[in-house]
Amino acid sequence: MTYCVAVKVDDGLVFVGDTRTSAGVDDVRTYNKMHVFETPGERVFVVMSAGNLATTQTVLTHLRRDMADDKPVNLNNIRHMFDAADYLGGLSVRSQKEAGAHTQYASNVDFRTTLILGGQIQGEDPALYLIYPEGNCISASPETPYIQIGESKYGKPILDRVIRPQISLEDAARCALVSMDSTMKSNLTVGPPLDLAVLPRDALRITHKERFDLDTPFYANLRKSWGDLLMRSFTELPRFEWEAQSQAQTQLL
Amino acid sequence: MTYCVAVKVDDGLVFVGDTRTSAGVDDVRTYNKMHVFETPGERVFVVMSAGNLATTQTVLTHLRRDMADDKPVNLNNIRHMFDAADYLGGLSVRSQKEAGAHTQYASNVDFRTTLILGGQIQGEDPALYLIYPEGNCISASPETPYIQIGESKYGKPILDRVIRPQISLEDAARCALVSMDSTMKSNLTVGPPLDLAVLPRDALRITHKERFDLDTPFYANLRKSWGDLLMRSFTELPRFEWEAQSQAQTQLL
Repeated sequence: MTYCVAVKVDDGLVFVGDTRTSAGVDDVRTYNKMHVFETPGERVFVVMSAGNLATTQTVLTHLRRDMADDKPVNLNNIRHMFDAADYLGGLSVRSQKEAGAHTQYASNVDFRTTLILGGQIQGEDPALYLIYPEGNCISASPETPYIQIGESKYGKPILDRVIRPQISLEDAARCALVSMDSTMKSNLTVGPPLDLAVLPRDALRITHKERFDLDTPFYANLRKSWGDLLMRSFTELPRFEWEAQSQAQTQLL
Repeated sequence: MTYCVAVKVDDGLVFVGDTRTSAGVDDVRTYNKMHVFETPGERVFVVMSAGNLATTQTVLTHLRRDMADDKPVNLNNIRHMFDAADYLGGLSVRSQKEAGAHTQYASNVDFRTTLILGGQIQGEDPALYLIYPEGNCISASPETPYIQIGESKYGKPILDRVIRPQISLEDAARCALVSMDSTMKSNLTVGPPLDLAVLPRDALRITHKERFDLDTPFYANLRKSWGDLLMRSFTELPRFEWEAQSQAQTQLL
Protein backbone atom coordinates (compact mmCIF):
# COMPACT_ATOMS: atom_id res chain seq x y z
CA MET A 1 0.00 0.00 0.00
CA THR A 2 0.93 3.66 -0.09
CA TYR A 3 -0.05 6.88 1.55
CA CYS A 4 0.25 10.20 -0.25
CA VAL A 5 -1.40 13.47 0.64
CA ALA A 6 -1.41 16.82 -1.11
CA VAL A 7 -2.77 20.04 0.35
CA LYS A 8 -3.91 23.16 -1.45
CA VAL A 9 -3.89 26.30 0.64
CA ASP A 10 -4.14 29.94 -0.41
CA ASP A 11 -0.34 30.21 -0.40
CA GLY A 12 0.28 27.21 -2.67
CA LEU A 13 0.61 23.45 -2.65
CA VAL A 14 2.29 20.90 -0.37
CA PHE A 15 2.95 17.24 -1.22
CA VAL A 16 3.96 14.42 1.12
CA GLY A 17 4.37 10.78 0.13
CA ASP A 18 5.83 7.62 1.57
CA THR A 19 8.13 5.32 -0.40
CA ARG A 20 7.13 1.81 0.62
CA THR A 21 5.76 -0.60 -1.96
CA SER A 22 4.65 -4.10 -1.20
CA ALA A 23 3.66 -7.05 -3.33
CA GLY A 24 2.97 -9.23 -0.33
CA VAL A 25 4.55 -8.91 3.08
CA ASP A 26 7.76 -10.60 1.92
CA ASP A 27 8.24 -8.34 -1.09
CA VAL A 28 8.67 -4.88 0.34
CA ARG A 29 10.68 -2.27 -1.53
CA THR A 30 11.39 1.41 -1.53
CA TYR A 31 10.27 3.45 -4.54
CA ASN A 32 9.93 7.13 -5.08
CA LYS A 33 6.23 7.93 -5.50
CA MET A 34 6.66 11.67 -5.98
CA HIS A 35 7.64 12.85 -9.43
CA VAL A 36 8.37 16.48 -10.25
CA PHE A 37 8.22 17.93 -13.77
CA GLU A 38 9.48 21.47 -13.59
CA THR A 39 10.27 24.27 -16.02
CA PRO A 40 11.23 26.95 -13.49
CA GLY A 41 9.43 30.22 -14.02
CA GLU A 42 6.96 28.67 -16.39
CA ARG A 43 5.29 25.48 -15.13
CA VAL A 44 5.57 22.88 -12.39
CA PHE A 45 3.77 19.54 -12.08
CA VAL A 46 3.98 17.07 -9.21
CA VAL A 47 2.60 13.56 -9.73
CA MET A 48 2.07 11.08 -6.89
CA SER A 49 0.77 7.55 -7.31
CA ALA A 50 -0.89 4.71 -5.41
CA GLY A 51 -1.66 1.35 -6.91
CA ASN A 52 0.02 -0.95 -9.39
CA LEU A 53 3.69 0.03 -9.63
CA ALA A 54 4.17 -1.26 -13.18
CA THR A 55 1.19 0.80 -14.38
CA THR A 56 2.55 3.86 -12.61
CA GLN A 57 5.98 3.44 -14.18
CA THR A 58 4.38 3.02 -17.60
CA VAL A 59 2.43 6.25 -17.11
CA LEU A 60 5.61 8.10 -16.11
CA THR A 61 7.50 6.67 -19.07
CA HIS A 62 4.77 7.85 -21.44
CA LEU A 63 4.78 11.28 -19.77
CA ARG A 64 8.54 11.65 -20.25
CA ARG A 65 8.56 10.20 -23.77
CA ASP A 66 5.75 12.53 -24.91
CA MET A 67 7.88 15.45 -23.73
CA ALA A 68 11.07 14.09 -25.30
CA ASP A 69 9.26 13.48 -28.60
CA ASP A 70 7.62 16.91 -28.40
CA LYS A 71 4.21 15.32 -28.98
CA PRO A 72 1.24 17.63 -29.77
CA VAL A 73 0.07 17.13 -26.20
CA ASN A 74 2.72 16.88 -23.49
CA LEU A 75 3.46 18.47 -20.12
CA ASN A 76 5.74 21.07 -21.73
CA ASN A 77 3.07 22.56 -23.98
CA ILE A 78 -0.22 21.81 -22.24
CA ARG A 79 -2.06 25.06 -21.53
CA HIS A 80 -4.28 24.36 -18.53
CA MET A 81 -3.94 22.32 -15.35
CA PHE A 82 -7.25 20.58 -16.03
CA ASP A 83 -5.98 19.51 -19.45
CA ALA A 84 -2.91 18.07 -17.77
CA ALA A 85 -5.12 16.05 -15.40
CA ASP A 86 -7.22 14.86 -18.32
CA TYR A 87 -4.10 13.89 -20.31
CA LEU A 88 -2.64 12.05 -17.32
CA GLY A 89 -5.95 10.22 -16.81
CA GLY A 90 -5.84 9.13 -20.44
CA LEU A 91 -2.27 7.83 -20.08
CA SER A 92 -3.30 5.95 -16.95
CA VAL A 93 -6.25 4.22 -18.62
CA ARG A 94 -4.08 3.35 -21.65
CA SER A 95 -1.34 1.91 -19.43
CA GLN A 96 -3.83 -0.20 -17.49
CA LYS A 97 -5.34 -1.52 -20.73
CA GLU A 98 -1.91 -2.36 -22.14
CA ALA A 99 -0.96 -4.22 -18.98
CA GLY A 100 -4.23 -6.14 -19.04
CA ALA A 101 -3.84 -7.02 -22.73
CA HIS A 102 -0.48 -8.65 -22.09
CA THR A 103 -2.00 -11.00 -19.54
CA GLN A 104 -2.24 -14.32 -21.32
CA TYR A 105 -4.24 -16.07 -18.64
CA ALA A 106 -6.88 -14.79 -16.27
CA SER A 107 -5.13 -13.32 -13.27
CA ASN A 108 -6.19 -11.53 -10.15
CA VAL A 109 -3.66 -8.77 -10.60
CA ASP A 110 -5.10 -5.31 -10.10
CA PHE A 111 -3.57 -3.03 -12.72
CA ARG A 112 -5.24 0.12 -11.45
CA THR A 113 -3.42 3.20 -10.25
CA THR A 114 -4.76 6.32 -8.60
CA LEU A 115 -2.86 9.55 -9.12
CA ILE A 116 -2.50 12.97 -7.60
CA LEU A 117 -1.57 15.80 -9.93
CA GLY A 118 -0.76 19.21 -8.52
CA GLY A 119 1.02 22.18 -9.94
CA GLN A 120 0.79 25.55 -11.57
CA ILE A 121 1.11 26.88 -15.12
CA GLN A 122 2.13 30.53 -15.51
CA GLY A 123 -0.93 32.76 -15.74
CA GLU A 124 -3.17 30.22 -13.96
CA ASP A 125 -3.91 29.50 -10.33
CA PRO A 126 -2.26 26.49 -8.70
CA ALA A 127 -4.49 23.41 -8.99
CA LEU A 128 -4.69 19.99 -7.41
CA TYR A 129 -6.46 16.92 -8.82
CA LEU A 130 -7.24 13.38 -7.80
CA ILE A 131 -7.17 11.17 -10.91
CA TYR A 132 -9.20 8.00 -10.59
CA PRO A 133 -8.14 4.72 -12.20
CA GLU A 134 -10.98 5.28 -14.67
CA GLY A 135 -9.17 8.36 -15.94
CA ASN A 136 -11.60 11.00 -14.71
CA CYS A 137 -10.64 13.45 -11.99
CA ILE A 138 -11.83 15.70 -9.21
CA SER A 139 -10.28 18.93 -8.02
CA ALA A 140 -9.43 20.03 -4.50
CA SER A 141 -11.62 22.92 -3.37
CA PRO A 142 -11.78 25.45 -0.52
CA GLU A 143 -14.18 23.12 1.31
CA THR A 144 -11.99 20.06 0.64
CA PRO A 145 -8.48 21.49 0.45
CA TYR A 146 -6.60 18.20 0.56
CA ILE A 147 -6.44 15.00 -1.47
CA GLN A 148 -5.29 11.61 -0.20
CA ILE A 149 -4.52 8.39 -2.04
CA GLY A 150 -3.74 4.94 -0.71
CA GLU A 151 -4.07 4.11 2.97
CA SER A 152 -5.92 7.31 3.80
CA LYS A 153 -8.12 6.68 6.84
CA TYR A 154 -5.58 6.72 9.67
CA GLY A 155 -4.24 10.13 8.71
CA LYS A 156 -7.56 11.78 7.86
CA PRO A 157 -8.75 13.03 11.28
CA ILE A 158 -5.79 15.39 11.80
CA LEU A 159 -6.23 16.80 8.28
CA ASP A 160 -9.93 17.37 8.95
CA ARG A 161 -9.09 19.27 12.11
CA VAL A 162 -6.20 21.41 10.89
CA ILE A 163 -6.26 21.98 7.14
CA ARG A 164 -7.96 25.22 6.06
CA PRO A 165 -7.16 27.33 2.98
CA GLN A 166 -5.91 30.13 5.24
CA ILE A 167 -3.12 28.20 7.01
CA SER A 168 0.50 28.69 6.00
CA LEU A 169 2.37 26.36 3.66
CA GLU A 170 4.58 25.39 6.60
CA ASP A 171 1.59 24.45 8.77
CA ALA A 172 0.15 22.49 5.87
CA ALA A 173 3.47 20.67 5.50
CA ARG A 174 3.66 19.93 9.24
CA CYS A 175 0.09 18.65 9.24
CA ALA A 176 0.73 16.40 6.24
CA LEU A 177 3.84 14.98 7.97
CA VAL A 178 1.87 14.37 11.19
CA SER A 179 -0.87 12.68 9.15
CA MET A 180 1.82 10.48 7.60
CA ASP A 181 3.35 9.72 11.00
CA SER A 182 -0.02 8.59 12.39
CA THR A 183 -0.51 6.35 9.37
CA MET A 184 2.93 4.76 9.68
CA LYS A 185 2.31 4.10 13.37
CA SER A 186 -0.87 2.15 12.59
CA ASN A 187 -0.12 0.51 9.24
CA LEU A 188 3.02 -1.36 8.26
CA THR A 189 2.50 -1.03 4.52
CA VAL A 190 3.21 2.70 4.72
CA GLY A 191 6.85 3.37 5.47
CA PRO A 192 9.79 5.75 5.43
CA PRO A 193 11.61 7.57 4.01
CA LEU A 194 9.10 10.32 3.25
CA ASP A 195 9.22 12.89 0.50
CA LEU A 196 8.08 16.47 0.94
CA ALA A 197 7.70 19.07 -1.79
CA VAL A 198 6.53 22.65 -1.38
CA LEU A 199 5.25 24.74 -4.30
CA PRO A 200 4.40 28.28 -3.22
CA ARG A 201 1.79 30.13 -5.28
CA ASP A 202 3.36 31.90 -8.27
CA ALA A 203 6.89 30.70 -7.41
CA LEU A 204 6.66 28.41 -10.45
CA ARG A 205 9.35 26.22 -8.93
CA ILE A 206 9.56 23.72 -6.07
CA THR A 207 11.15 25.82 -3.33
CA HIS A 208 11.70 22.91 -0.93
CA LYS A 209 12.08 19.24 -1.68
CA GLU A 210 13.26 17.09 1.16
CA ARG A 211 13.49 13.42 2.01
CA PHE A 212 13.01 12.49 5.65
CA ASP A 213 14.03 9.24 7.24
CA LEU A 214 12.99 8.36 10.79
CA ASP A 215 16.33 9.64 12.08
CA THR A 216 16.51 12.81 9.97
CA PRO A 217 16.85 15.41 12.76
CA PHE A 218 13.89 17.61 11.79
CA TYR A 219 11.51 14.72 11.26
CA ALA A 220 12.68 12.83 14.36
CA ASN A 221 12.10 16.02 16.33
CA LEU A 222 8.65 16.54 14.78
CA ARG A 223 7.58 12.98 15.59
CA LYS A 224 8.80 13.14 19.16
CA SER A 225 7.30 16.58 19.71
CA TRP A 226 3.93 15.55 18.38
CA GLY A 227 3.90 12.41 20.52
CA ASP A 228 4.85 14.39 23.61
CA LEU A 229 2.37 17.17 22.88
CA LEU A 230 -0.44 14.67 22.33
CA MET A 231 0.31 12.98 25.63
CA ARG A 232 0.44 16.34 27.41
CA SER A 233 -2.84 17.34 25.77
CA PHE A 234 -4.30 14.07 26.88
CA THR A 235 -3.48 14.77 30.53
CA GLU A 236 -5.27 18.11 30.26
CA LEU A 237 -8.61 16.69 29.14
CA PRO A 238 -11.60 17.21 31.43
CA ARG A 239 -12.17 14.71 34.23
CA PHE A 240 -15.30 12.62 34.60
CA GLU A 241 -17.59 13.77 37.40
CA TRP A 242 -17.02 10.53 39.28
CA GLU A 243 -13.30 10.80 38.75
CA ALA A 244 -13.06 14.19 40.42
CA GLN A 245 -14.69 12.69 43.49
CA SER A 246 -12.45 9.66 43.71
CA GLN A 247 -9.39 11.84 43.15
CA ALA A 248 -10.49 14.21 45.88
CA GLN A 249 -10.82 11.23 48.19
CA THR A 250 -7.40 9.98 47.23
CA GLN A 251 -5.90 13.33 48.02
CA LEU A 252 -7.58 13.31 51.40
CA LEU A 253 -6.06 9.97 52.33
CA MET B 1 -21.32 1.07 9.72
CA THR B 2 -20.38 1.12 13.37
CA TYR B 3 -17.46 1.89 15.57
CA CYS B 4 -16.96 0.16 18.91
CA VAL B 5 -13.80 -0.04 20.97
CA ALA B 6 -13.02 -1.87 24.20
CA VAL B 7 -9.87 -1.43 26.25
CA LYS B 8 -8.34 -3.78 28.77
CA VAL B 9 -6.03 -2.14 31.28
CA ASP B 10 -4.64 -3.46 34.54
CA ASP B 11 -7.48 -1.78 36.44
CA GLY B 12 -10.27 -3.29 34.37
CA LEU B 13 -12.26 -2.84 31.17
CA VAL B 14 -13.75 0.13 29.34
CA PHE B 15 -16.27 -0.05 26.48
CA VAL B 16 -17.35 2.70 24.08
CA GLY B 17 -19.74 2.28 21.17
CA ASP B 18 -21.69 4.48 18.80
CA THR B 19 -25.38 3.92 18.03
CA ARG B 20 -25.75 4.65 14.32
CA THR B 21 -26.90 1.93 11.98
CA SER B 22 -27.32 2.40 8.27
CA ALA B 23 -28.80 0.26 5.53
CA GLY B 24 -27.95 2.80 2.86
CA VAL B 25 -27.57 6.53 3.33
CA ASP B 26 -31.32 7.06 3.40
CA ASP B 27 -31.99 4.43 6.02
CA VAL B 28 -30.12 5.61 9.09
CA ARG B 29 -31.31 4.64 12.55
CA THR B 30 -30.19 4.67 16.14
CA TYR B 31 -29.68 1.35 17.90
CA ASN B 32 -27.98 0.42 21.11
CA LYS B 33 -24.91 -1.67 20.26
CA MET B 34 -23.76 -2.20 23.84
CA HIS B 35 -25.47 -4.93 25.81
CA VAL B 36 -24.76 -5.62 29.47
CA PHE B 37 -25.48 -8.94 31.20
CA GLU B 38 -24.78 -8.50 34.86
CA THR B 39 -25.17 -10.52 38.03
CA PRO B 40 -23.61 -8.05 40.46
CA GLY B 41 -20.94 -9.56 42.66
CA GLU B 42 -20.76 -12.69 40.54
CA ARG B 43 -20.37 -12.06 36.81
CA VAL B 44 -20.58 -9.28 34.23
CA PHE B 45 -20.56 -9.54 30.43
CA VAL B 46 -20.60 -6.70 27.92
CA VAL B 47 -21.35 -7.51 24.28
CA MET B 48 -20.83 -5.03 21.44
CA SER B 49 -21.61 -5.70 17.78
CA ALA B 50 -20.78 -4.53 14.27
CA GLY B 51 -22.35 -5.95 11.15
CA ASN B 52 -25.77 -7.25 10.23
CA LEU B 53 -28.30 -5.89 12.74
CA ALA B 54 -30.78 -8.74 12.32
CA THR B 55 -28.04 -11.31 13.01
CA THR B 56 -26.94 -9.34 16.07
CA GLN B 57 -30.49 -9.18 17.41
CA THR B 58 -30.90 -12.91 16.84
CA VAL B 59 -27.70 -13.59 18.78
CA LEU B 60 -28.90 -11.42 21.66
CA THR B 61 -32.31 -13.10 21.65
CA HIS B 62 -30.65 -16.53 21.85
CA LEU B 63 -28.38 -15.28 24.65
CA ARG B 64 -31.36 -14.09 26.69
CA ARG B 65 -33.53 -17.10 25.92
CA ASP B 66 -30.81 -19.55 26.92
CA MET B 67 -30.62 -17.78 30.28
CA ALA B 68 -34.39 -17.64 30.70
CA ASP B 69 -34.70 -21.34 29.82
CA ASP B 70 -31.76 -22.17 32.11
CA LYS B 71 -30.07 -24.08 29.29
CA PRO B 72 -27.06 -26.30 30.16
CA VAL B 73 -24.83 -23.59 28.69
CA ASN B 74 -25.84 -19.98 29.25
CA LEU B 75 -24.24 -16.76 30.50
CA ASN B 76 -25.53 -17.39 34.04
CA ASN B 77 -23.73 -20.70 34.49
CA ILE B 78 -20.76 -20.55 32.15
CA ARG B 79 -17.53 -21.00 34.11
CA HIS B 80 -14.84 -19.26 32.11
CA MET B 81 -14.67 -16.12 29.98
CA PHE B 82 -13.17 -18.07 27.10
CA ASP B 83 -16.12 -20.46 27.18
CA ALA B 84 -18.45 -17.49 27.01
CA ALA B 85 -16.61 -16.20 23.92
CA ASP B 86 -16.78 -19.64 22.34
CA TYR B 87 -20.50 -19.95 23.15
CA LEU B 88 -21.20 -16.50 21.72
CA GLY B 89 -19.23 -17.37 18.57
CA GLY B 90 -21.36 -20.48 18.17
CA LEU B 91 -24.59 -18.49 18.54
CA SER B 92 -23.30 -16.00 15.98
CA VAL B 93 -22.52 -18.67 13.37
CA ARG B 94 -25.90 -20.33 13.99
CA SER B 95 -27.72 -17.02 13.60
CA GLN B 96 -25.92 -16.22 10.35
CA LYS B 97 -26.72 -19.67 8.98
CA GLU B 98 -30.39 -19.35 9.94
CA ALA B 99 -30.63 -15.97 8.25
CA GLY B 100 -28.98 -17.33 5.12
CA ALA B 101 -31.27 -20.39 5.05
CA HIS B 102 -34.36 -18.19 4.98
CA THR B 103 -33.17 -16.40 1.87
CA GLN B 104 -35.27 -17.82 -0.91
CA TYR B 105 -33.32 -16.20 -3.73
CA ALA B 106 -29.66 -15.39 -4.11
CA SER B 107 -29.07 -12.04 -2.45
CA ASN B 108 -26.08 -9.88 -1.78
CA VAL B 109 -26.99 -9.35 1.85
CA ASP B 110 -24.07 -9.81 4.19
CA PHE B 111 -25.35 -11.64 7.26
CA ARG B 112 -22.08 -11.50 9.15
CA THR B 113 -21.58 -9.87 12.51
CA THR B 114 -18.40 -9.21 14.47
CA LEU B 115 -18.64 -9.10 18.24
CA ILE B 116 -16.71 -7.85 21.21
CA LEU B 117 -17.15 -9.73 24.47
CA GLY B 118 -15.64 -8.36 27.63
CA GLY B 119 -16.27 -9.07 31.27
CA GLN B 120 -15.27 -10.89 34.40
CA ILE B 121 -16.43 -13.99 36.21
CA GLN B 122 -15.76 -14.18 39.94
CA GLY B 123 -12.43 -15.91 40.62
CA GLU B 124 -11.08 -15.14 37.14
CA ASP B 125 -9.28 -12.17 35.65
CA PRO B 126 -11.22 -9.76 33.47
CA ALA B 127 -11.02 -10.77 29.81
CA LEU B 128 -11.72 -9.18 26.46
CA TYR B 129 -12.36 -11.00 23.17
CA LEU B 130 -12.91 -10.17 19.53
CA ILE B 131 -15.30 -12.75 18.05
CA TYR B 132 -15.02 -13.11 14.30
CA PRO B 133 -18.05 -13.80 12.06
CA GLU B 134 -16.62 -17.34 11.67
CA GLY B 135 -17.19 -17.92 15.39
CA ASN B 136 -13.55 -18.09 16.49
CA CYS B 137 -12.02 -15.42 18.69
CA ILE B 138 -8.86 -13.64 19.78
CA SER B 139 -8.10 -12.15 23.15
CA ALA B 140 -6.75 -8.72 24.00
CA SER B 141 -3.25 -8.91 25.46
CA PRO B 142 -0.74 -6.64 27.22
CA GLU B 143 0.85 -5.90 23.84
CA THR B 144 -2.52 -5.27 22.18
CA PRO B 145 -4.69 -3.99 25.01
CA TYR B 146 -7.63 -2.81 22.90
CA ILE B 147 -10.09 -4.28 20.42
CA GLN B 148 -11.97 -2.37 17.74
CA ILE B 149 -14.82 -3.44 15.48
CA GLY B 150 -16.42 -1.63 12.56
CA GLU B 151 -14.95 1.56 11.15
CA SER B 152 -11.70 1.23 13.06
CA LYS B 153 -8.96 3.01 11.10
CA TYR B 154 -9.71 6.65 11.84
CA GLY B 155 -9.62 6.13 15.58
CA LYS B 156 -6.65 3.76 15.74
CA PRO B 157 -3.68 6.19 15.85
CA ILE B 158 -4.70 7.79 19.15
CA LEU B 159 -5.23 4.35 20.73
CA ASP B 160 -1.79 3.23 19.52
CA ARG B 161 -0.22 6.29 21.14
CA VAL B 162 -2.04 6.33 24.45
CA ILE B 163 -3.33 2.91 25.48
CA ARG B 164 -1.00 0.96 27.76
CA PRO B 165 -2.01 -1.60 30.42
CA GLN B 166 -0.73 0.78 33.11
CA ILE B 167 -3.03 3.74 32.39
CA SER B 168 -6.07 4.40 34.56
CA LEU B 169 -9.58 3.33 33.63
CA GLU B 170 -10.49 7.00 33.31
CA ASP B 171 -7.65 7.69 30.87
CA ALA B 172 -8.66 4.61 28.91
CA ALA B 173 -12.24 5.91 28.79
CA ARG B 174 -11.12 9.37 27.69
CA CYS B 175 -8.91 7.88 25.00
CA ALA B 176 -11.73 5.67 23.69
CA LEU B 177 -14.04 8.70 23.55
CA VAL B 178 -11.40 10.76 21.69
CA SER B 179 -10.91 7.84 19.30
CA MET B 180 -14.68 7.82 18.72
CA ASP B 181 -14.73 11.59 18.22
CA SER B 182 -12.02 11.42 15.55
CA THR B 183 -13.95 8.68 13.79
CA MET B 184 -17.22 10.62 13.84
CA LYS B 185 -15.46 13.69 12.43
CA SER B 186 -14.18 11.72 9.43
CA ASN B 187 -16.97 9.19 8.78
CA LEU B 188 -20.68 9.89 8.64
CA THR B 189 -21.75 6.31 9.24
CA VAL B 190 -20.52 6.48 12.83
CA GLY B 191 -22.73 8.72 14.92
CA PRO B 192 -23.96 9.80 18.32
CA PRO B 193 -25.16 9.21 20.93
CA LEU B 194 -22.27 7.22 22.39
CA ASP B 195 -22.40 4.62 25.11
CA LEU B 196 -19.69 4.24 27.74
CA ALA B 197 -19.39 1.42 30.28
CA VAL B 198 -16.67 1.00 32.88
CA LEU B 199 -15.98 -2.34 34.58
CA PRO B 200 -13.25 -2.04 37.21
CA ARG B 201 -11.28 -5.17 38.00
CA ASP B 202 -12.99 -7.27 40.68
CA ALA B 203 -15.90 -4.84 41.04
CA LEU B 204 -18.07 -7.48 39.33
CA ARG B 205 -20.51 -4.74 38.34
CA ILE B 206 -20.58 -1.91 35.81
CA THR B 207 -19.71 1.09 37.97
CA HIS B 208 -20.41 3.70 35.29
CA LYS B 209 -22.69 3.46 32.31
CA GLU B 210 -23.37 6.69 30.51
CA ARG B 211 -24.86 7.83 27.23
CA PHE B 212 -23.32 10.94 25.67
CA ASP B 213 -24.91 13.07 23.00
CA LEU B 214 -22.97 15.81 21.26
CA ASP B 215 -24.44 18.36 23.66
CA THR B 216 -24.05 16.33 26.85
CA PRO B 217 -21.93 18.77 28.91
CA PHE B 218 -19.05 16.42 29.71
CA TYR B 219 -18.72 15.11 26.19
CA ALA B 220 -19.17 18.54 24.57
CA ASN B 221 -16.42 19.79 26.87
CA LEU B 222 -14.16 16.82 26.05
CA ARG B 223 -14.58 17.32 22.29
CA LYS B 224 -13.94 21.04 22.45
CA SER B 225 -10.96 20.61 24.80
CA TRP B 226 -9.38 17.97 22.58
CA GLY B 227 -9.86 20.11 19.47
CA ASP B 228 -8.35 23.14 21.21
CA LEU B 229 -5.46 21.15 22.70
CA LEU B 230 -4.64 19.60 19.33
CA MET B 231 -4.57 23.00 17.67
CA ARG B 232 -2.38 24.38 20.45
CA SER B 233 -0.07 21.38 20.17
CA PHE B 234 0.09 21.96 16.47
CA THR B 235 1.34 25.51 16.92
CA GLU B 236 4.12 24.21 19.17
CA LEU B 237 5.61 21.82 16.62
CA PRO B 238 9.18 22.46 15.47
CA ARG B 239 9.73 24.89 12.60
CA PHE B 240 11.39 23.93 9.34
CA GLU B 241 14.90 25.32 8.98
CA TRP B 242 13.83 27.46 6.05
CA GLU B 243 10.80 28.65 7.97
CA ALA B 244 12.87 29.99 10.85
CA GLN B 245 14.83 32.08 8.36
CA SER B 246 11.80 33.49 6.59
CA GLN B 247 10.16 34.23 9.95
CA ALA B 248 13.27 35.99 11.17
CA GLN B 249 13.20 38.09 8.06
CA THR B 250 9.54 38.87 8.57
CA GLN B 251 10.23 39.99 12.11
CA LEU B 252 13.01 42.25 10.89
CA LEU B 253 10.69 44.03 8.48
